Amino acid sequence: MNYTILGTGAIGGYYGSKLQKAGIDVNFIARSDYQYIKDNGLKISSIDGDFTLPKVSVFNSVDETPMADVVIVSTKTTSNSMLPKLLKPIIKDGTIILVLQNGMGMEEELQKAFPQAKIIGGMCFICSQKLSDGHIGHFDQGTISAVPFNVEDMDLLKLLQEDFTVAGIKFSVFENLIEQRWKKLMWNIPFNSLSVILNADTGEIMNNANSLSIAKKLMLEVVEGAKSQGCNIEAMVEVMINVTYKMTPYKPSMRVDYDFNRPLEIEYMFENPIAIAKANGVEMPLTELITKQLLFLCRNI
Amino acid sequence: MNYTILGTGAIGGYYGSKLQKAGIDVNFIARSDYQYIKDNGLKISSIDGDFTLPKVSVFNSVDETPMADVVIVSTKTTSNSMLPKLLKPIIKDGTIILVLQNGMGMEEELQKAFPQAKIIGGMCFICSQKLSDGHIGHFDQGTISAVPFNVEDMDLLKLLQEDFTVAGIKFSVFENLIEQRWKKLMWNIPFNSLSVILNADTGEIMNNANSLSIAKKLMLEVVEGAKSQGCNIEAMVEVMINVTYKMTPYKPSMRVDYDFNRPLEIEYMFENPIAIAKANGVEMPLTELITKQLLFLCRNI
Repeated sequence: MNYTILGTGAIGGYYGSKLQKAGIDVNFIARSDYQYIKDNGLKISSIDGDFTLPKVSVFNSVDETPMADVVIVSTKTTSNSMLPKLLKPIIKDGTIILVLQNGMGMEEELQKAFPQAKIIGGMCFICSQKLSDGHIGHFDQGTISAVPFNVEDMDLLKLLQEDFTVAGIKFSVFENLIEQRWKKLMWNIPFNSLSVILNADTGEIMNNANSLSIAKKLMLEVVEGAKSQGCNIEAMVEVMINVTYKMTPYKPSMRVDYDFNRPLEIEYMFENPIAIAKANGVEMPLTELITKQLLFLCRNI
Repeated sequence: MNYTILGTGAIGGYYGSKLQKAGIDVNFIARSDYQYIKDNGLKISSIDGDFTLPKVSVFNSVDETPMADVVIVSTKTTSNSMLPKLLKPIIKDGTIILVLQNGMGMEEELQKAFPQAKIIGGMCFICSQKLSDGHIGHFDQGTISAVPFNVEDMDLLKLLQEDFTVAGIKFSVFENLIEQRWKKLMWNIPFNSLSVILNADTGEIMNNANSLSIAKKLMLEVVEGAKSQGCNIEAMVEVMINVTYKMTPYKPSMRVDYDFNRPLEIEYMFENPIAIAKANGVEMPLTELITKQLLFLCRNI
């Protein structure tokens, strides 16, 4: 199977490089650093060992990319409205689209745009960052939790799991996409928002009783949101707190976006879950408040 | 009656100067700019007309100040724990203490410390700021709403009202201190907190749908807090919104304190009202969240 990486950044650049390093056929799509990557390849500085790929197959447009067996969508959700047009030329009957994005509602939209494709939701537990053109830093963790949008596509995940395992990436398979998405949001909602609003990294948030208390209250609202869709993820609160304590303090992606004056992923990560919970009869008032704070703070971006 | 102004800043400097200009006997207590004021007097740049007082009676300690008929407490609540010791030398039997501070709980504490004094709560509706040593800017409004801590002291307010009226200051008298304190908090809680958390002035907060929505939700929690003590101030929400629309955009006092790395008035303005509402069975969850954000943001001050 060939892989096309849409978005050669902190996520796509890392996983794509690991796959290519394992001998798998990978096409990268890049924009700002397309020419740099074409000339120099990709460089990964990783806690698991640094490596370089001096030559990669890179394109600055899908139009020239071969039809894809697997597409990894690792762009920001802030440009998701362009995905149907962007992906159209490389999607064939049965193409697997692995959505490595944060938030809620992406899979539904992609399935609607591409009924012939197999949509897989992917949750990455990774601290990585694009350091410069063609250079990705990988600081912590790296596992992927994958869930099919349609349960009958469960078998396809075995194929992906094989490739990722060969590439040295822990790739776990789950059945309930909604539950996994809410679990991921339990971390993303508090730590992404507070990192921007309080100008703090994960360590500063964890080591202050007031910010930690806010984070926990937001997590409990996510528990209620998940409950509104029949998922019980209450036990995850303590797990998430403990995981974050052990993390090397770092700036969540939304803080990095904010610092670079880039659009924030508020719609999929905050507005969609709030709307879904509300449609199921559950209010998330604290999450609504911090969402409005974020919308205010990025008003001029 | 002689007046002693404890805290010759944006509030005390302005009102004290207006009183002295009207021929009333005023003693100022100043700290950082004591020597400057002693040498140069006070200068008021006001929308109602600029004026200077080349010579004022100023002290850098209460120990040398004459016994006071009226004390105006216009220091920040952040140093209220020092008030009993600070005021002791100038309080006699029947001294009126007019508390021109924001928040809740100040009057109770002062009455406890000085059972022989008459405590009056004062709410200032004013935009003023200390511009430099001995120089106060007065940008908007300027009225005072005064309420006795004990209703039987109502008559004393007539005396104060006469002096302030002579000084050209609108001085309104009310009977219900709790209600007036909650009304003032209805403005202070949203605009002071958001000015710090969102780094915004009143105009920016009013002119953005998200921040305005937060401000209104916080106001509605204040309405509930007031209701927990038997006060119905719901009709004030629209009044406060309209007043703030018409204000010249400016930085609330808490933002100014934050910018100058000074302690924030979180205890009396946020923690006390939350605790009082809670003791009366009403939760203020959004106000609690922003309070924790403020406590985080000033953690190194």
